[in-house]
Amino acid sequence: MKLTQAQAEEIVSGALERGAILGKALSIAIVDAGGFAVLIKRSDGARPLTPSIAMSKAYTAAVMERPSNMLKNWAESNPGFFAQLSTMGTHPIVATDGGVTIKRDGEIIGGLGVSGGTPAEDQKVCDEVLAELGYELEFPAWGTGAPRK
Amino acid sequence: MKLTQAQAEEIVSGALERGAILGKALSIAIVDAGGFAVLIKRSDGARPLTPSIAMSKAYTAAVMERPSNMLKNWAESNPGFFAQLSTMGTHPIVATDGGVTIKRDGEIIGGLGVSGGTPAEDQKVCDEVLAELGYELEFPAWGTGAPRK
Amino acid sequence: MKLTQAQAEEIVSGALERGAILGKALSIAIVDAGGFAVLIKRSDGARPLTPSIAMSKAYTAAVMERPSNMLKNWAESNPGFFAQLSTMGTHPIVATDGGVTIKRDGEIIGGLGVSGGTPAEDQKVCDEVLAELGYELEFPAWGTGAPRK
Amino acid sequence: MKLTQAQAEEIVSGALERGAILGKALSIAIVDAGGFAVLIKRSDGARPLTPSIAMSKAYTAAVMERPSNMLKNWAESNPGFFAQLSTMGTHPIVATDGGVTIKRDGEIIGGLGVSGGTPAEDQKVCDEVLAELGYELEFPAWGTGAPRK
Repeated sequence: MKLTQAQAEEIVSGALERGAILGKALSIAIVDAGGFAVLIKRSDGARPLTPSIAMSKAYTAAVMERPSNMLKNWAESNPGFFAQLSTMGTHPIVATDGGVTIKRDGEIIGGLGVSGGTPAEDQKVCDEVLAELGYELEFPAWGTGAPRK
Repeated sequence: MKLTQAQAEEIVSGALERGAILGKALSIAIVDAGGFAVLIKRSDGARPLTPSIAMSKAYTAAVMERPSNMLKNWAESNPGFFAQLSTMGTHPIVATDGGVTIKRDGEIIGGLGVSGGTPAEDQKVCDEVLAELGYELEFPAWGTGAPRK
Repeated sequence: MKLTQAQAEEIVSGALERGAILGKALSIAIVDAGGFAVLIKRSDGARPLTPSIAMSKAYTAAVMERPSNMLKNWAESNPGFFAQLSTMGTHPIVATDGGVTIKRDGEIIGGLGVSGGTPAEDQKVCDEVLAELGYELEFPAWGTGAPRK
Repeated sequence: MKLTQAQAEEIVSGALERGAILGKALSIAIVDAGGFAVLIKRSDGARPLTPSIAMSKAYTAAVMERPSNMLKNWAESNPGFFAQLSTMGTHPIVATDGGVTIKRDGEIIGGLGVSGGTPAEDQKVCDEVLAELGYELEFPAWGTGAPRK
């Protein structure tokens, strides 16, 4: 299953509506399962680097196959090693709020990244918009996942 | 004058319509005057790296203040130096078709990059959509420009 | 459709058998559709960098969605721009023989890279092993592909 | 003594069997004494970056001539300097569990890296498989070694 541009637009629209309600100028990024950009949008007034921040969150969520905030324990317990992860991919691997894996029917099809709000707001926007659109938000705790069947 | 998300959407829509007529799956990037992403969209079927290629064209057109194909003479006459340019910014500076500066009332407000067609098609899409929307497509030849007033 | 380790092993075994017949110590790399390694194997006697060369060929074939030798025209017509492509991914984008896209039922599921023989041998190994195993070897000429349906 | 492909296969098979018993999808990397890849294998279900992580552990264990977790004191006592080490080789030098030097008859012939389990699991897989296959697991403490004879 490939994430389509229409699906990406739907997610981004939902995220931007929530940003408008919060009164925050957000940037939103959507990547496919391989971490390649599908749609990146910066709201009027969002700071210049927010699209790149959103992209790194979306990339992390896709290629690490977990929401980016599930990596916090790893980043805190071995920050040097964690920093080196970023040299292994195309974009930084970030341990922060606001990046959530896009999953449907158990299959990872991409990543969503939100930047421009507080960490809690960025996270809430991700969770709400993906839940509303029927994507799955259950992920096994880091380090305990069974092999994919 | 700041390039708005609404303007970016209008340009990207026009470019994608032309891609559909050509039968090509395009990726389109729009950056602001500082070269920061405003909108990046990858059509269904466009190759994974096309958003990055489009971004480098848009970035080049914005921060070099000329369409990217106007840099071909420079790139050919001094390729080593030209390659080093790419290390000075956030994205590669490319000398190729498909990147055009977004200018209105004499003011440079951003860059448009198109990837996914032939070089001639990418360029034609840029030129047509910007002309149709009333942006200016006259740029002084490279190396001959008077100091900016 | 995800490329499995069993499929990768089958392709690599076939390639190494052909290397043995040619009397060449080959390195073989298989990546998934996103360009991430699935299996890399260096034969006894293959030179130290051949696994990395094979990896760059496999990566190119996967993310450019064409065999790596189909990029030769592009690389020759605009070498500076082509070189900059490599900064956009995780591995170099190479225009050479010995990298072929892995495609089944019209879907791109990965890339195969072979290094250690002559360019013609590397290419022949790719083509023969993929044909024998029932993968598709028809790719639209570069720049003429219709959008994916 | 050169590490052969047959030896690498034997080690990787043993490691993957242990991964299956643990219920973890692992990636395994084997490098030679110079840190060049011999065999990299990603199990079905292992995350996209795990082959690169396993590679960095194997590389570290080979070129630092110690298991990667013996570098933790150094990394903690001088993190800035340790981070710079990573710029001196081809792959990151990592101070973490899951990378063990491959040594036989007192000679260092390569490195093994495991990624995909918990740090303790990755380490246990390395130690068990190398011990079972008769490799030596005694290494002088870092910074106390006498000159190599």
